Amino acid sequence: MKLTILGCHSATPRTNTNPTSQVLEIKNHTFLIDCGEGTQVELRRNKIKFVRIKHIFISHLHGDHCFGLVGLISTFRLLTREADLHIYAPKGLKEVITLQMKLSDSWTNYKLIFHELTSTSSELIFEDEKVEVYTIPLDHRIYTNGFLFKEKEGERKLDMNAVLNADIDVAYYRKLKQGFDVKDNKGNLVSNKSVTKPPNTPKRYAFCSDTAYNEAMLPVINNVDVLYHEATFLEKNAVLAHPTKHCTAKQAARIAKQANAGTLILGHYSTRYDDINMFKEEAEVIFENVELARDGKVFEF
Amino acid sequence: MKLTILGCHSATPRTNTNPTSQVLEIKNHTFLIDCGEGTQVELRRNKIKFVRIKHIFISHLHGDHCFGLVGLISTFRLLTREADLHIYAPKGLKEVITLQMKLSDSWTNYKLIFHELTSTSSELIFEDEKVEVYTIPLDHRIYTNGFLFKEKEGERKLDMNAVLNADIDVAYYRKLKQGFDVKDNKGNLVSNKSVTKPPNTPKRYAFCSDTAYNEAMLPVINNVDVLYHEATFLEKNAVLAHPTKHCTAKQAARIAKQANAGTLILGHYSTRYDDINMFKEEAEVIFENVELARDGKVFEF
Repeated sequence: MKLTILGCHSATPRTNTNPTSQVLEIKNHTFLIDCGEGTQVELRRNKIKFVRIKHIFISHLHGDHCFGLVGLISTFRLLTREADLHIYAPKGLKEVITLQMKLSDSWTNYKLIFHELTSTSSELIFEDEKVEVYTIPLDHRIYTNGFLFKEKEGERKLDMNAVLNADIDVAYYRKLKQGFDVKDNKGNLVSNKSVTKPPNTPKRYAFCSDTAYNEAMLPVINNVDVLYHEATFLEKNAVLAHPTKHCTAKQAARIAKQANAGTLILGHYSTRYDDINMFKEEAEVIFENVELARDGKVFEF
Repeated sequence: MKLTILGCHSATPRTNTNPTSQVLEIKNHTFLIDCGEGTQVELRRNKIKFVRIKHIFISHLHGDHCFGLVGLISTFRLLTREADLHIYAPKGLKEVITLQMKLSDSWTNYKLIFHELTSTSSELIFEDEKVEVYTIPLDHRIYTNGFLFKEKEGERKLDMNAVLNADIDVAYYRKLKQGFDVKDNKGNLVSNKSVTKPPNTPKRYAFCSDTAYNEAMLPVINNVDVLYHEATFLEKNAVLAHPTKHCTAKQAARIAKQANAGTLILGHYSTRYDDINMFKEEAEVIFENVELARDGKVFEF
């Protein structure tokens, strides 16, 4: 997986920071997650090919997570896009976008498919042979979901030395990758495990923004490899976190620790902080493996 | 008047060019004209104080002229704005903005006053003691207005040497500025013209984007000091201008010439052109005094 942070600040776009948006490249998909104002410019700046984006996941309808979407949809149209575009978002966004297109008499020449989310339980919203995406219900001022991106278990890998020694016909290789025992050229049964290796461990990435401290998400993100969790405030401003239903860096670290996450990436910083290194320092007291999101930063895992 | 170009390209925001938006400072007003995506960032970059913006004029509901508005309205809220905000825009924008605020449960704590435009004739939409603003009906794919900003005739200026020589009481200065004859301290009538000078000639600025070649606007913009007129294409691509209801640089120059404008500022360039100097060259064949809008450029007149 490759995660490109397009924007990781809260509230409002500024000359040097962008609101929330990120791109997850996973198993030949290019998923766009949230789409604050300016996202299309950041996609260009980070050289993400527009045509590769076929699925957009919107956490909630606060402007710093979705005000860039209508412009991106329009730009896709101007670029004469033909591929379907799927948008997974809280109910309501379809109505806004449709109204904006109607008023500007600018209908897309590609198929725009809205998947309107309303469930308050985690649900599977996308699946193909290699990837699943689940919602992660969050606790924010309005209806909000995080998203869990899961690679599916891959095929077993052939141990080519062992396969050749065992004298197995090429026609059986596919069965071997699928985990079956097969027969060698003399008709003897060959156990799968003797000639194959286990597949790569499937990875999981959880995006959790925006939310109050919310242990209810733990069962969904348990043992996740990488957790992006909002940390809008530092503990010294904890009094602001509660009423706005945001977290401090320390709270994000507590979630990461309880979830037994591999890595915690912090983001959604309030623009009141000039030095975001303090978020890392605060979180590391609780949880060891902390990274800071920064606009334009790429994580590979 | 001081005109700051925040964005002057058509269609879509890019890493180095912005869609339409400009700020006109006139008689202590800071008018924002159009508000494409990214306008709030360009306001910051150009050090325009948000709090000074009390009137926003939107020409039409194509995204490159209005998709930045909802974000700006939200940012005003986050900055705890209290002053009223007046928005002059085609009917429909109020519905979109209201729906977006409803869905994000983010109502403004200041008064947001929409003036919905529907007239296809030029109309007075703003007036105070010093300034008038009129619509300029344009010919585009959807309902579109340009805007004419007019300074009102100011007060006469005191010729202080003459005033002192004429021995006129200070209490009469106000009357003199208003053009009245007054009496000197001996009771003799003093003619206004003998002790005052004429006011500065009031200036007029016309913003005309987007539009097809449209002579119908000429009566409204006749003798305007500065005309901003869209020039989306060069003549070599004139075939694209007609169906999209845009103009070429040459057509913009023909309008400026017939209107007897003082200066023509070109803008709304299609992003297909790397060298916008060709727009100036093409227009100057028809009209002498041509300027090119560029993002961040300031015109004072």
